[in-house]
Amino acid sequence: MMFTRESFRALEFRNGALVLLDQRLLPSRLGYIECRSVRDVFLAIQDMAVRGAPAIGGAAGYGVYFALLESAGDAAAFNRSCDYLITSRPTAVNLKWAVERVRKTALNSALDPQAVLEEAHSIVREDLEMNYRIAEAGCEVIRPGAAVLTHCNTGALATCGWGTALGVIKAAWQKGGNIFVYADETRPRLQGARLTAWELKEAGIPSKLIPDSAAATLIRDGKIDCVILGADRIAANGDFANKIGTFALSVICRHYGVPFYTAAPTSTIDFDTPDGSGIMIEERDADEVRMIDGIRIAPEGFDVYNPSFDVTPHQNLTGIITECGIIREPYDVNLARLRTQLGR
Amino acid sequence: MMFTRESFRALEFRNGALVLLDQRLLPSRLGYIECRSVRDVFLAIQDMAVRGAPAIGGAAGYGVYFALLESAGDAAAFNRSCDYLITSRPTAVNLKWAVERVRKTALNSALDPQAVLEEAHSIVREDLEMNYRIAEAGCEVIRPGAAVLTHCNTGALATCGWGTALGVIKAAWQKGGNIFVYADETRPRLQGARLTAWELKEAGIPSKLIPDSAAATLIRDGKIDCVILGADRIAANGDFANKIGTFALSVICRHYGVPFYTAAPTSTIDFDTPDGSGIMIEERDADEVRMIDGIRIAPEGFDVYNPSFDVTPHQNLTGIITECGIIREPYDVNLARLRTQLGR
Repeated sequence: MMFTRESFRALEFRNGALVLLDQRLLPSRLGYIECRSVRDVFLAIQDMAVRGAPAIGGAAGYGVYFALLESAGDAAAFNRSCDYLITSRPTAVNLKWAVERVRKTALNSALDPQAVLEEAHSIVREDLEMNYRIAEAGCEVIRPGAAVLTHCNTGALATCGWGTALGVIKAAWQKGGNIFVYADETRPRLQGARLTAWELKEAGIPSKLIPDSAAATLIRDGKIDCVILGADRIAANGDFANKIGTFALSVICRHYGVPFYTAAPTSTIDFDTPDGSGIMIEERDADEVRMIDGIRIAPEGFDVYNPSFDVTPHQNLTGIITECGIIREPYDVNLARLRTQLGR
Repeated sequence: MMFTRESFRALEFRNGALVLLDQRLLPSRLGYIECRSVRDVFLAIQDMAVRGAPAIGGAAGYGVYFALLESAGDAAAFNRSCDYLITSRPTAVNLKWAVERVRKTALNSALDPQAVLEEAHSIVREDLEMNYRIAEAGCEVIRPGAAVLTHCNTGALATCGWGTALGVIKAAWQKGGNIFVYADETRPRLQGARLTAWELKEAGIPSKLIPDSAAATLIRDGKIDCVILGADRIAANGDFANKIGTFALSVICRHYGVPFYTAAPTSTIDFDTPDGSGIMIEERDADEVRMIDGIRIAPEGFDVYNPSFDVTPHQNLTGIITECGIIREPYDVNLARLRTQLGR
């Protein structure tokens, strides 16, 4: 807890409800929604009122709690609700991880709501603690005065607090590193423009917003010292899925020798998926590309390819910043060692 | 004239006015503006009611005509107006090229309005003819059944008719090539989403719109057979400036061995600029990134880096498709030969 935490919360459990900061409204408005059922949580995840793999995991824990209350002691109904919740988004592994963790507590406690709620709280508490440890571990890759590029949003809004990649960046800033941040706007949902820029402004960190396609020139011209971004699922060999645009950045960085890091809790690692080819990539609605806030920016009905994520091969990666330190190549060997260490 | 021309016109001279299809309104609305003064033309170019290097050149020719009418025989005033017109946008060389061409006619004809108007008409007529020749020359790089990726808009809207890179693509389609087109949406001005998608729909060509950052995965996965896009200025060694995002695409294509072409009339070649480092890159207003159609998508006042173009090194280029055929490496030698041939 050596860092000054942000004033807002992406999610909070209050008076029997999961209160979510509605991220669809930023940066124009700071609004909240209350979830009181597994369906509420499902829809909030699916429509991205809450997003970011760790925050989705945190919200999903409470979803399991609501599933338990709704099932009224019927274990089969409870299990169906849990399975349903997992389908709200397919790529991030934290979602499944959190649901299974809280489900296990439920089944081991003879469906005790109090035990389940405590487990959901634990996920949130542990995520925050892990993020601080990720930040501590990652600080070393940002030298004083560095310019850091990030993609999408991996801050307090994407997690149960503080952040992963943006958490590392905020930590470097709070330690007096005098850094500068470039934030990709991150089409189509514009998490960089809407969320990361908002968090950077709140934190008072000197920064600029850029169109995703402007990053390559900055990288070539030596204006970026390192790239740090998040991960939605990391395979056992270090290949990882992250927001669309990550892969392109990784190729450019490799071409110009710029360090390229992902920062994520070890709960993001899917040890059962050998490599990136096994990661399912969510394709989202065409209107995410054709419309912005109800305004048409492409011809009606025009066909769209809108993958939410892409897969970056481990060869393009300089390191994986986790709460257990920085994992470097050979990733298969070092991740296998980590798995043993974690007892997973 | 072997191709079926589109039904709309980006620019047309009618009843003493330059009528521009207002490209800021597409795809929602097909609207026109009338320019009757050099200032009207300046503002239309600056605010991108007309855009695309060849279309800007075409419009600028009529701007010189208006400059002549306004100067009422005062050669110094006329020259000042011409210089002013050139400053409306700094990167595209066609603008300067067209202004100088018509200015020369004016000065050589003792400021004869009719001669000047004819010269402006010639630019438009010749651009259309050149685009047909570019299309003929370029067809060979698109094999039947190919998937082609393009960036920004280089169609009839970007030119005085037919198009350059998109003209090549349309030609391949009209010749029965059974192709498929992926169009980058092209942030921040969304010329791909707003204009290219609209042109592709008008032409009935099977196609999909993608966020700029989704192109890399398609290229890696072998889903793109070639990339063809435009150029705003080509240096004497083949380095070229084009819409922001072009350079990143070129690196990805080079990495994965996918052919990468630019298509442009030879008026786009700036033989006096030895290489890309000499090309001035226009930086545009921050609100192009922070707002979309008046809607805020980033925090107010947040700093932005918004370069309109980037420079692609000739090493990443498979060929330059011009009305004089396809120029290939070594570009410095072959462009010098072309210069001699053109008598420039």
